Amino acid sequence: MSKELSTRAANYSEWYNELVEKADLAQHSAVKGCMVIKPYGYAIWEKMQQALDKMFKDTGHVNAYFPLFVPKSLFEAEETNAEGFAKECAVVTHYRLKSDPNNKGKLIVDPDAKLTEELIVRPTSEAIIWSTYKGWIQSYRDLPILINQWANVVRWEMRTRLFLRTAEFLWQEGHTAHETKAEAIAETEKMLHVYADFAENWMAMPVLKGIKTANERFAGADETYCIEALMQDGKALQAGTSHFLGQNFAKAFDVKFANKEGKQEYVWATSWGVSTRLMGALIMSHSDDKGLVLPPKLAPFQVVIVPIYKGEEQLAQISEVVFRMKKAMEAKGISVKYDDRDNQRPGWKFAEYELKGVPVRIAIGGRDLENGTVELARRDTMEKETLQQAGIEDKVAQLLEQIQDNLYQKALALREAKTTTVDTYEEFKSVLEGKTGFVLAHWDGTSETEKKIKEETKATIRCIPLNNKQETGTCIYSGKPSTQRVVFAKAY
Amino acid sequence: MSKELSTRAANYSEWYNELVEKADLAQHSAVKGCMVIKPYGYAIWEKMQQALDKMFKDTGHVNAYFPLFVPKSLFEAEETNAEGFAKECAVVTHYRLKSDPNNKGKLIVDPDAKLTEELIVRPTSEAIIWSTYKGWIQSYRDLPILINQWANVVRWEMRTRLFLRTAEFLWQEGHTAHETKAEAIAETEKMLHVYADFAENWMAMPVLKGIKTANERFAGADETYCIEALMQDGKALQAGTSHFLGQNFAKAFDVKFANKEGKQEYVWATSWGVSTRLMGALIMSHSDDKGLVLPPKLAPFQVVIVPIYKGEEQLAQISEVVFRMKKAMEAKGISVKYDDRDNQRPGWKFAEYELKGVPVRIAIGGRDLENGTVELARRDTMEKETLQQAGIEDKVAQLLEQIQDNLYQKALALREAKTTTVDTYEEFKSVLEGKTGFVLAHWDGTSETEKKIKEETKATIRCIPLNNKQETGTCIYSGKPSTQRVVFAKAY
Repeated sequence: MSKELSTRAANYSEWYNELVEKADLAQHSAVKGCMVIKPYGYAIWEKMQQALDKMFKDTGHVNAYFPLFVPKSLFEAEETNAEGFAKECAVVTHYRLKSDPNNKGKLIVDPDAKLTEELIVRPTSEAIIWSTYKGWIQSYRDLPILINQWANVVRWEMRTRLFLRTAEFLWQEGHTAHETKAEAIAETEKMLHVYADFAENWMAMPVLKGIKTANERFAGADETYCIEALMQDGKALQAGTSHFLGQNFAKAFDVKFANKEGKQEYVWATSWGVSTRLMGALIMSHSDDKGLVLPPKLAPFQVVIVPIYKGEEQLAQISEVVFRMKKAMEAKGISVKYDDRDNQRPGWKFAEYELKGVPVRIAIGGRDLENGTVELARRDTMEKETLQQAGIEDKVAQLLEQIQDNLYQKALALREAKTTTVDTYEEFKSVLEGKTGFVLAHWDGTSETEKKIKEETKATIRCIPLNNKQETGTCIYSGKPSTQRVVFAKAY
Repeated sequence: MSKELSTRAANYSEWYNELVEKADLAQHSAVKGCMVIKPYGYAIWEKMQQALDKMFKDTGHVNAYFPLFVPKSLFEAEETNAEGFAKECAVVTHYRLKSDPNNKGKLIVDPDAKLTEELIVRPTSEAIIWSTYKGWIQSYRDLPILINQWANVVRWEMRTRLFLRTAEFLWQEGHTAHETKAEAIAETEKMLHVYADFAENWMAMPVLKGIKTANERFAGADETYCIEALMQDGKALQAGTSHFLGQNFAKAFDVKFANKEGKQEYVWATSWGVSTRLMGALIMSHSDDKGLVLPPKLAPFQVVIVPIYKGEEQLAQISEVVFRMKKAMEAKGISVKYDDRDNQRPGWKFAEYELKGVPVRIAIGGRDLENGTVELARRDTMEKETLQQAGIEDKVAQLLEQIQDNLYQKALALREAKTTTVDTYEEFKSVLEGKTGFVLAHWDGTSETEKKIKEETKATIRCIPLNNKQETGTCIYSGKPSTQRVVFAKAY
């Protein structure tokens, strides 16, 4: 297999597709639109899950599990939500196969096993969860409910891309229930901050925190908060959403509680989720033409050690030193892989681990044995240096922190360079076509203008930033008065 | 809600159903046959997952994820497997809903969105995984592949019971690929031992390790290994299976590799799985008429502390002592919950934590403050003792180990008491009806006899134990010669 990737400059989209496959992250499956997440890719997802799961638990949430299927009658109960997802629903209509009488050894769907009510494969779980919460909530003493679920969901997609848009994807979905509107809004905002914290401190990916316009809102939400990241090609990526659902689901499923005064009230709701789409965001935030670049906090292994040797005797000498260094690094919580396979040459291994984005590579050969040194290469800058073996663990621990920080700073600098304030529609279009990135512009606040701009330029309003600066101006499209700039971009 | 359970003696089945619901482990959902796993139940499942996942990784396996759906043409490729699962398959036939023209606000399945090929919701993933492995395997250098997947699967069931038999359940499924038959069999056996280790050392549940008869074998396997546990009512429960799949899936999906001599050979396969069914096994192994009894290693929290106080001032004094004890215990890796809620009385809390099976309860009141003592109660024996606060953490650490061991010994003693060797069919039937449990009897080795015995007594051959003692005898049913006793029981 050729390890050569397309370059980002030549074809960003091909570069991404090739990188995902060649770095062994994921591949297309025999099922249209569904992906196979390969072990190396899944190991990164597991790191993400562990970090997020801890953050959810630290903020008082517990995990639970709800059914994969939603009966159609429940699915359609919250009409806005149902309409929003209706066009993307995989539907189970039968529960049995039988032998094909005309084709020995083959099976057909048994027409006698038709379900009386169709089951929707969950595209999201508000309906099944709120129909369950109804049985759990009688009084204010039963609130809040702070539940998260790790699950697979299905949204039928015609045009799919690995991680970014697939018919089945893995995600977590939080579903909380509250006494008051204020408490539910505070929860919605809290989880947005958790997502931003994760994106910035684990993924090394700066994000804008903001609110979606009505057009871009989650179907069934009163307000959708989001974090938006900017990829290297200047396109935005929605990395996580946190929804204030008002009393919409409580009303659809008749979920009331007796408040402290004994009065019946509808319960207030939130939901929030991030998905394997974050894998796409991670890849596109940091990687380069040589392959994946991983932030140390999410790398399946942070250091790889490659021996450069002639003969078994020298390998044994090198291995002795390596085991000592490995142990010292592991004692500091650093994950280390020693690749002493004898069927691949060092150069092949170097290219392989560059492709896979391992943050630090250590090579050790005959001369290093004599000198008590190693050659260390960092993946983010590709810089090499020669270091003493003694105390290598402290140096590497420090370096991993530097790499984590450097990736964040680099991504932040890119975002800043690709954020442009414009005052005219001409300028707006020219930035979108040329420089790309986030474009800050005045907008008259109407869905109509937003739709027109999207039709003409493919740009959408990514968000209205939290605590957005208020300033008077005129809408770039309609010329009507505006009180603030919003963030436009073309998006994934 | 009444906390009173049915007793095991009066109605074992009702006792189980009530316990699962009242201890907040799981409940039935709005989807026929599917369950909701509630937070407390899910926390136990998470503990199981963590322990098993580590054991899989320690034995060289990695996780990955494959699609939920299997196209019908792939599903039916391995015919024995397909036939075995055909009657339990949920089938997706459409990918879109649309507004019902005759019923405003309602949805119908869009007849224009019929799939050209139906998708089966995976009942198990051999088909989709082996169709993927075909692309991964060219030479012996690509082997072995040692992959595990954590996933949900669906097997349509008409008669369901929470955890024990549900249409959707959570599980892990290992799928490995090997160069040689011997290596695949060694893997099959290795994973059986991993399961037995987990059952005995984490769940405190003794298991028999053995091989299934052809009748009870996994559809598509050449050999099915299993671990079998005995529940308190004398019925057996299959707790895990490990399958040697021969070259059946390799042949069905044409997966060949070039061996070291450059010759093309079919790949050898195994698969192995345990599921949320283990939750049912755990519950039925140890629990009593007061509720759940959890082995400390799988308890979401191992110790609960309940303050018994008059007034806020005394609560503050007690809390100060509790925080000190809690910290000391947590430093030893013990998980502790302090329940200082003021809206429930101590007696209510005691009953609640007995129902939920918390291994150790510590109560502390006014007199304890004066004496520097606490009252400690262990859930397994319900014994209470008064202990000094100082050094409580060492005492509790020791006690948790004792409880873990005691639960295992108690379950083992029950199994031994309920294992009977019989030589006649009359005796066989009488034990099954009266004493119940495992019955060791000679069998002529034919499926015909096995089926007849099942029809007449509902007992099945649970397994032929590994390293089974060979002895000549005559089949209890047919009188034909037999070389060994096998293990019969009625089963879940």
